[in-house]
Amino acid sequence: MALYVQKYGGTSVGTVERIEHVADKVKSFHDAGHQIVVAVSAMSGETNRLIGLAKGISDTPSPREMDVLVSTGEQVTIALLAMALQKRGINARSFTGWQVGIKTDNAFMKARIEEIDTIPMREHLDSGGVVVVAGFQGIDPDNNITTLGRGGSDTTGVALAAALGADECQIYTDVDGVYTTDPRVVPNARRMDRVTFEEMLEMASLGSKILQIRSVEFAGKYKVPLRVLSSFSEGNGTLITMEENASVENPVIAGIAFNRDEAKVTVQGVPDVPGVASRILVPISEANIEVDMIVQNVSADGTTDFTFTVHRNDYKKAMTLLNALATELNARGVHGTDDICKVSMVGVGMRSHAGVASKMFKTLADENINILAITTSEIKISVVIAEKYLELAVRALHTAFGLDAEAVED
Amino acid sequence: MALYVQKYGGTSVGTVERIEHVADKVKSFHDAGHQIVVAVSAMSGETNRLIGLAKGISDTPSPREMDVLVSTGEQVTIALLAMALQKRGINARSFTGWQVGIKTDNAFMKARIEEIDTIPMREHLDSGGVVVVAGFQGIDPDNNITTLGRGGSDTTGVALAAALGADECQIYTDVDGVYTTDPRVVPNARRMDRVTFEEMLEMASLGSKILQIRSVEFAGKYKVPLRVLSSFSEGNGTLITMEENASVENPVIAGIAFNRDEAKVTVQGVPDVPGVASRILVPISEANIEVDMIVQNVSADGTTDFTFTVHRNDYKKAMTLLNALATELNARGVHGTDDICKVSMVGVGMRSHAGVASKMFKTLADENINILAITTSEIKISVVIAEKYLELAVRALHTAFGLDAEAVED
Repeated sequence: MALYVQKYGGTSVGTVERIEHVADKVKSFHDAGHQIVVAVSAMSGETNRLIGLAKGISDTPSPREMDVLVSTGEQVTIALLAMALQKRGINARSFTGWQVGIKTDNAFMKARIEEIDTIPMREHLDSGGVVVVAGFQGIDPDNNITTLGRGGSDTTGVALAAALGADECQIYTDVDGVYTTDPRVVPNARRMDRVTFEEMLEMASLGSKILQIRSVEFAGKYKVPLRVLSSFSEGNGTLITMEENASVENPVIAGIAFNRDEAKVTVQGVPDVPGVASRILVPISEANIEVDMIVQNVSADGTTDFTFTVHRNDYKKAMTLLNALATELNARGVHGTDDICKVSMVGVGMRSHAGVASKMFKTLADENINILAITTSEIKISVVIAEKYLELAVRALHTAFGLDAEAVED
Repeated sequence: MALYVQKYGGTSVGTVERIEHVADKVKSFHDAGHQIVVAVSAMSGETNRLIGLAKGISDTPSPREMDVLVSTGEQVTIALLAMALQKRGINARSFTGWQVGIKTDNAFMKARIEEIDTIPMREHLDSGGVVVVAGFQGIDPDNNITTLGRGGSDTTGVALAAALGADECQIYTDVDGVYTTDPRVVPNARRMDRVTFEEMLEMASLGSKILQIRSVEFAGKYKVPLRVLSSFSEGNGTLITMEENASVENPVIAGIAFNRDEAKVTVQGVPDVPGVASRILVPISEANIEVDMIVQNVSADGTTDFTFTVHRNDYKKAMTLLNALATELNARGVHGTDDICKVSMVGVGMRSHAGVASKMFKTLADENINILAITTSEIKISVVIAEKYLELAVRALHTAFGLDAEAVED
């Protein structure tokens, strides 16, 4: 008998029929003798509907009241799922964030969980019941309703699993696991049986938007085994674990992530003196432009080229800012392009295998793909290339590193 | 400076625009220096939408989970109204039932308020703020969410007013007060400035469905002055008070209520022995048929005629039951009709004025309207007449008793 925390997202509970289906799934685990705590999101579309109502009243609604408003979405789902389970003869009981005792700080709309009272859940589990918890919400020290921010139901699931010492936190979503890359780009992308937390973090932040990044960090920190699987189909999904897979067949590279929404800007020929980077980046961050990759080459003639990437939506704003800044910085000029993309290879195996970078660059060169910028970390190499080469690059790398479904069997 | 509890119903907060309008109204009272506690219903249609979701899952959803579900409706409204007030520069704060401390028993879907903690409200009022409370909901001793049953937001308003010792509980609705009768039937029906609780109770139960009857009882019990007024227009509405209006111009009759949905059944010639009434009515009540008027004449030849009225929807069921019962009861026969209506004159002034009944009967006789049954109480006389005479009867009585707007000025 195991204790599982299962989290079902908005699409998985998007209609009454989908909720019935989730109830079937939960029942099958319960019938097998397991203890089940379910955390659910709002029915898909509901949170946006509520936000729309608020925006109809104010462009800057109070965060406290926003949390009172949007937390109703999950409350609707827990009641409906509890009803569906009860119809199946299961002693289910719904718990709002405050009822289950999810204590957070008072940062409305982006609260952090500080403590979870497990007694109410334990009591109900021990009586043979299924616990149904509203994800995404909690209560602050002054009894105010808080929410964990968009997508925070994953975090609720992981936090509940950590607090209860659950055997596994299962995140049900609309994909059946984590893939070596986006199957829409590489049709023979392979579902991974296992992936490490570090790899998952790099994959997530680079565009594999399956799990909320904070919930992965959280699961890693509290050593909660996390499994991503589909609520729409059967299958074991992908287990996210602490352990690296030591088997010899394990590929060096776990997966290939990419991001199309990038733009690249370069400030050319700035005097290479201390403080230049901050003089460029401070105005950018003050304009609320998020910077992704930052590349600065070694100085040649006492000047250097400073390159960074931003979200494509911020490209024009960044260029305007930098053009205004160029004279002040004594820069030779500012150059940018918004038809680029970023491709990243991720894998903890990289650490112990030399030559991953060179093999990557050679693969791209063989396809005549020019690399515009490179950054690396311990378990990741990212390159910026022209967007038109994205599919070609990802497919070529996927094959070259032995990730194709034909090449490596589960 | 007064303390007002204002309750706004579902139609009054049915859209974002309506909520903005309510915020304007609240602001005008706040600006005038009054302390305001607002209790609100769910946006119109929302409760039915939520119930529809539940019915999609189960015909017999658990009452506990129903309360978790439907209580979200009011929670949405308090957040939106608080935002609208904040936009107007008012320090508004929303409170759910559990946050404000509305303690109820554990009768889900029809809970009764047992205690209200006024400290959180007082603190916010004393800081110059407006308190926005979710109507219709509370919390039981085990921290379960409860609701007061349909229309229970009126009760919340009255209970808050009683607990806070408010100067007035103002119930905002879509009518601008209580009328002497339905203005759709009598165009010159008159809005009453004042009406007593007793009169209001008789009017309400007889079809003037403006206020939840329980909230009127509650207000009477705790001596909370209640005012019914329109959220859509200006005006002072109708004040419901303990005191009878002693002015000489005050008419004996407060108003005329009527009910079209009636059917009348008579068991003819039953032996006039003890226990006959219960032998007839017990099977009726066991079949969940609600009985309204009951009339039994004095015995003539050792047998009597037993007449009662039921809702028109229950007419066929009642007749079938009684026909089956007739032999067993030794009755001469069963007779019924479903094209009748009930007209009732209500007024505490009746107590001290003889001749109200005779004047009523004469007025009807002058119009050639046959009276089929009569019941009376201390402050009410009801007659059953053919439905086709309803408008004629109500208009004739309205004029005869000096209720027309022209006849009695405010």
